[in-house]
Amino acid sequence: MAHPNLTAFLTSSNEIDKQTIASLIERCTVKKVKKDEFLLRENENCKYSFFVEDGLLREYSIDKKGKEHILSFAPEGWIVTDRESVYFNQPSANYIQALENSTVILLDEQFFASLAKKVPRFVDINNRLLHNHIRHLKKRIKLLLSAAAEDRYLAFINMYPAIVNRVPQTMIASYLGITPESLSRIRKELVNKKFNS
Amino acid sequence: MAHPNLTAFLTSSNEIDKQTIASLIERCTVKKVKKDEFLLRENENCKYSFFVEDGLLREYSIDKKGKEHILSFAPEGWIVTDRESVYFNQPSANYIQALENSTVILLDEQFFASLAKKVPRFVDINNRLLHNHIRHLKKRIKLLLSAAAEDRYLAFINMYPAIVNRVPQTMIASYLGITPESLSRIRKELVNKKFNS
Repeated sequence: MAHPNLTAFLTSSNEIDKQTIASLIERCTVKKVKKDEFLLRENENCKYSFFVEDGLLREYSIDKKGKEHILSFAPEGWIVTDRESVYFNQPSANYIQALENSTVILLDEQFFASLAKKVPRFVDINNRLLHNHIRHLKKRIKLLLSAAAEDRYLAFINMYPAIVNRVPQTMIASYLGITPESLSRIRKELVNKKFNS
Repeated sequence: MAHPNLTAFLTSSNEIDKQTIASLIERCTVKKVKKDEFLLRENENCKYSFFVEDGLLREYSIDKKGKEHILSFAPEGWIVTDRESVYFNQPSANYIQALENSTVILLDEQFFASLAKKVPRFVDINNRLLHNHIRHLKKRIKLLLSAAAEDRYLAFINMYPAIVNRVPQTMIASYLGITPESLSRIRKELVNKKFNS
């Protein structure tokens, strides 16, 4: 089957059958991007949800002082997009870039409209996806407000087990809102704890 | 008209007429809560979206060390709820409490189901509300990751102009993820800038 990861993602709730998905995915554009290549830049209108069939993307912004802030990572099986830019049809304030050579499926409004037409329960599925997204964002806010750097790092490993060793430490530190030096110290402490327990 | 703020909120997009709203609100429970009273406590399942007709609420959590973190404020005209708890029918990790004597309208699933039935475009309206919520959460994450404390405070004033003088400074500092001392310093600097400009 073509695009096994996207098919698995969309059929995971057993509410959409594989035949329907296959016919819809057929019409999507599949894009191969090289490491460091961009799928979205600041001030562009984001037109797609990017499904990562293979590889690794990151979404980030650059602040007034020129500092990068990682908003999310998307390894294989994940979707990344600037939802606000797509939904409100506004220029994005973010970048989406490949961190590895990747295969990405571009899901446009047409794709979701066809899905909604073919699958009556798509409204509910979409609603659940949005609520999951909200849950994830609120969790991140709580971590940023309250958690010690070590707890933030452990939550990160828990959420992104597949990528801890695939992205530079500076980017993980940026995602966590801590300095690379703090991250390095935390990692050493965790190793020590492991050996002493 | 009874409950002018909720009526205004629901009819603001001109997609729902006032008659429909009035008949639906009639069936909702209106609750008067005193300052400091709770509408939701940790480990309770949240059953409602709380619309603030009059007064001021806050949503907050308490971390492992017993420290409070303000997740949001809700003055008159705002809705506050633990969406995850309502939607996934799970115990909440948060508290919702009145900061002033308040009049709150309890919107339950039944209310939204009736609304969806009477207003076919409610699916789209709800979708827009969810996207607005996501936009707001992502903005907050960016502010927490990147912005200097002064920028965070200015964004706060911009979002909540009606409440700056109604909540204790310690709570504003908690919302911003900074110490009360930093907030006090920022406020003084802003006053000085104003007098010197």
